[in-house]
Amino acid sequence: MFVIITYDIEDKRVAKVHKILKKYLVWTQNSVFEGEITEGKLKKCLAEIRGVVNDQVDSLYVYQVKNPKQIQKTVYGQEKSFETMFL
Amino acid sequence: MFVIITYDIEDKRVAKVHKILKKYLVWTQNSVFEGEITEGKLKKCLAEIRGVVNDQVDSLYVYQVKNPKQIQKTVYGQEKSFETMFL
Repeated sequence: MFVIITYDIEDKRVAKVHKILKKYLVWTQNSVFEGEITEGKLKKCLAEIRGVVNDQVDSLYVYQVKNPKQIQKTVYGQEKSFETMFL
Repeated sequence: MFVIITYDIEDKRVAKVHKILKKYLVWTQNSVFEGEITEGKLKKCLAEIRGVVNDQVDSLYVYQVKNPKQIQKTVYGQEKSFETMFL
């Protein structure tokens, strides 16, 4: 399936969450990750994240689309490669 | 259709972009809007945004799903109502 994960995490925990997400998905914007992932791997990813975040403060939105063909992505302006920017 | 719009806009322009997006969609997280919208209204919305942003610096990602039933959203942690927070 295709997923988009957006997060709003307190500064002190954001690096840890980022590191976990990076193992499973592609970083596209400041607080947005996306990519194709199996249901099993997504569960694993979310379990790891739950071990790090504070449910009372942080938030994580997971948008799942079973068939990647059903979602169309358009980029306006700069398609930033964050991986390159911060290496 | 259902759309998710994420943006990475320079501070001095972000309020203007935010104001435009708010007319068409629902603000869910820091730099994420979502909602059901017609193709015509989405075009109008993007045209307004293009009049404000700097293509060389800013970026806007638009994810479109024709049938809203094909996308499943799950919220972990706090489902923030930004509208309420900042009113």
